[in-house]
Amino acid sequence: MVEFSIDPYVDLYAHRTSGMAASEVRALFAVASQPDVISLAGGMPFVEALPTEDLLAVTQKVIEERGALALQYGGGLGQPTLRERLAGLMAEESISDADPEKICVTAGGSQAIDILGKIFVDRGDEIVVEAPSYVGALSAFSAYEPKYVCIPLDDDGMVVDEFEEALLKGAHPKFVYTIPNFQNPGGVTLSLPRRERLVALCREAGIPIVEDNPYGLLRFEGDPLPTLKSMDPHNVIYIGSLSKVFASGIRIGWVLTESSVLQRFLLAKEAADLCTSNLTQLIAEDYLDGDRWKRNLATLVDIYHARRNACIRTLEETFPEDSSWTHPRGGFYVWVTIPDQFDSQRLLAAAVERRVAYVPGTAFYPDGRGHNQLRLAYCYPSEDDVEEGVRRLARLLADEEALFLSLRPRP
Amino acid sequence: MVEFSIDPYVDLYAHRTSGMAASEVRALFAVASQPDVISLAGGMPFVEALPTEDLLAVTQKVIEERGALALQYGGGLGQPTLRERLAGLMAEESISDADPEKICVTAGGSQAIDILGKIFVDRGDEIVVEAPSYVGALSAFSAYEPKYVCIPLDDDGMVVDEFEEALLKGAHPKFVYTIPNFQNPGGVTLSLPRRERLVALCREAGIPIVEDNPYGLLRFEGDPLPTLKSMDPHNVIYIGSLSKVFASGIRIGWVLTESSVLQRFLLAKEAADLCTSNLTQLIAEDYLDGDRWKRNLATLVDIYHARRNACIRTLEETFPEDSSWTHPRGGFYVWVTIPDQFDSQRLLAAAVERRVAYVPGTAFYPDGRGHNQLRLAYCYPSEDDVEEGVRRLARLLADEEALFLSLRPRP
Repeated sequence: MVEFSIDPYVDLYAHRTSGMAASEVRALFAVASQPDVISLAGGMPFVEALPTEDLLAVTQKVIEERGALALQYGGGLGQPTLRERLAGLMAEESISDADPEKICVTAGGSQAIDILGKIFVDRGDEIVVEAPSYVGALSAFSAYEPKYVCIPLDDDGMVVDEFEEALLKGAHPKFVYTIPNFQNPGGVTLSLPRRERLVALCREAGIPIVEDNPYGLLRFEGDPLPTLKSMDPHNVIYIGSLSKVFASGIRIGWVLTESSVLQRFLLAKEAADLCTSNLTQLIAEDYLDGDRWKRNLATLVDIYHARRNACIRTLEETFPEDSSWTHPRGGFYVWVTIPDQFDSQRLLAAAVERRVAYVPGTAFYPDGRGHNQLRLAYCYPSEDDVEEGVRRLARLLADEEALFLSLRPRP
Repeated sequence: MVEFSIDPYVDLYAHRTSGMAASEVRALFAVASQPDVISLAGGMPFVEALPTEDLLAVTQKVIEERGALALQYGGGLGQPTLRERLAGLMAEESISDADPEKICVTAGGSQAIDILGKIFVDRGDEIVVEAPSYVGALSAFSAYEPKYVCIPLDDDGMVVDEFEEALLKGAHPKFVYTIPNFQNPGGVTLSLPRRERLVALCREAGIPIVEDNPYGLLRFEGDPLPTLKSMDPHNVIYIGSLSKVFASGIRIGWVLTESSVLQRFLLAKEAADLCTSNLTQLIAEDYLDGDRWKRNLATLVDIYHARRNACIRTLEETFPEDSSWTHPRGGFYVWVTIPDQFDSQRLLAAAVERRVAYVPGTAFYPDGRGHNQLRLAYCYPSEDDVEEGVRRLARLLADEEALFLSLRPRP
């Protein structure tokens, strides 16, 4: 897409651009979006399930009743009426007393992540991230040149003991970035005891927690756990998003934080793009009016549940015995670990040749780990396609394994 | 709005936040938006003139024909079909051969400005800006802590001789940021000889020009001048916007630049917010289809023309003799210089008390100048209101002048 050319400005770019690297898999994504490739790569919500009549009704109402407002610049914090609805939405996730005046609307949760990096991170500052963590957050943060303190995950989410150990060893992070529910890419959820421990440790050390929660309402099974924000309202900066609850194409996310942080956040938000689209804000506001959004979300959750089942069932049936994977109880992703001799980044080209795509594990670590891991997103393809995609991957691994064995020196 | 509180994280913020200051006039803007205050402050397009049926038709078509695409994530560069339309739009402004593959769609022109600051400016780097310049650009750039090289304006736009002198004295700017057409806040337009000289100087010195052109199509009188981009396609980074040509509430802008810059720009854009809203991109694309947008724009230009006339006529009739102002031939703004004893920042509170608002000149300089200058935006209030607003200001100045004379020590 972007062609190569000699760059006359090579000495003019800011130092931070050296930390901005194109994902090596981007070129393959173009291929992966071909219609005959089953993509288990992108975390795309299945917006096809949203009824067209709902969207027509909402957009028509906004244009007819508040057209001039929708087309105009708005304030940096976002529309007060939308912020009230977002406070109501957060009440569905244990945050019962959110103050709309402490919300700033952003261009998706992504922009909230970027702005938090911008206002907290100087070059060389430490920040804590889960390993693996959301590739988009790593990209956003890396522009501010942090030093990553990577805390591993297990089936109960971030291993908080390891975080405590890092603190004891002298880590001084600006913040802890975590996705407690149905983590991206891990698919795992932070357990209640670990939530309590994490919140206590951070409060004691005066380290803010950045809680990124785009998937919390996409739970298929088990009981919801309290958000970190509800457990310590003063020390948690909460990031919400409508990308998975409604639609990613409207680019509506938000931050909920104490006024002291919000003041700086707002200045940085206004400096970044003045304000979020009033049109998409008002559409979101009207969509969240009444119970329609809950009905549509329930439909989506059922769809994702069935697709997760197809994914896990097929993994169990077809994947090599010495592989393992997480068991997400909500969200979009299964995190798969394959035998150590495989390189999931190298394998991707062969996978795409066999008309299936995923994201290699290395994308989710700041330090090059993850060569034998991969993220499978079951959210978008049909159940049949999820099953067929996993089968294609399993055949590829079997063929590679056979090749590997045939090439191994005999004893 | 944002309440005061003791900040537990005061030692955690990034150094760059110290350069992010809330405009002193922000508090007054809340007052200025009261219905009985005539606001000559904000540069709000008069979107009320857009026919509701056009907007309904466009949004309905997008939802019905491309609803799933509109609601989904998109690529970082933006929708290819919109980029083709934007290339067509630029052909209306002398850029006849824009390659859609060299366009990246942004959240308004503002985000393009921010991202260019992000990829070019390290702390302490020099950048050239006009003095006065767009307050939003100064806010965006300041987050990257540049050293400003300020070049004055006169009726022919940036005084390019002074830029040349700055280069001779050893300035090494990362880029030159200019708004050649109907400058914000100056209202002036860069003359053709100066365009030629600026382009030649920058090419010779290897300094990229950032040409910000949101107002170019809003000309009431005189012949269009060629864009800098058309005069030196390889050394000019062009920023376009639909905020004034269509609507600011959809937040659609773009950058057109050579591939070398575009590669870094795209990485920074994706890190900032992944992608711009597909919904608003497709709405913009459909709106730009056919001639409807030109008809609506012609209506808007006529309205702005009449309002500028009302503004200038009333200034001539009522303002103190030793005042002066620019004569915009397009765009939104008149830049007014009042006698030196006035302080337009201090006067603003009194003006708002008299139910009229403007932006004090100091907002548009990075170095505290402009105390006796102010920006009047005639774009949004009716002709009658523009006239009445200027009259109120004139009466305020007359009253202040009388007070000043009465307090002056007698000889």
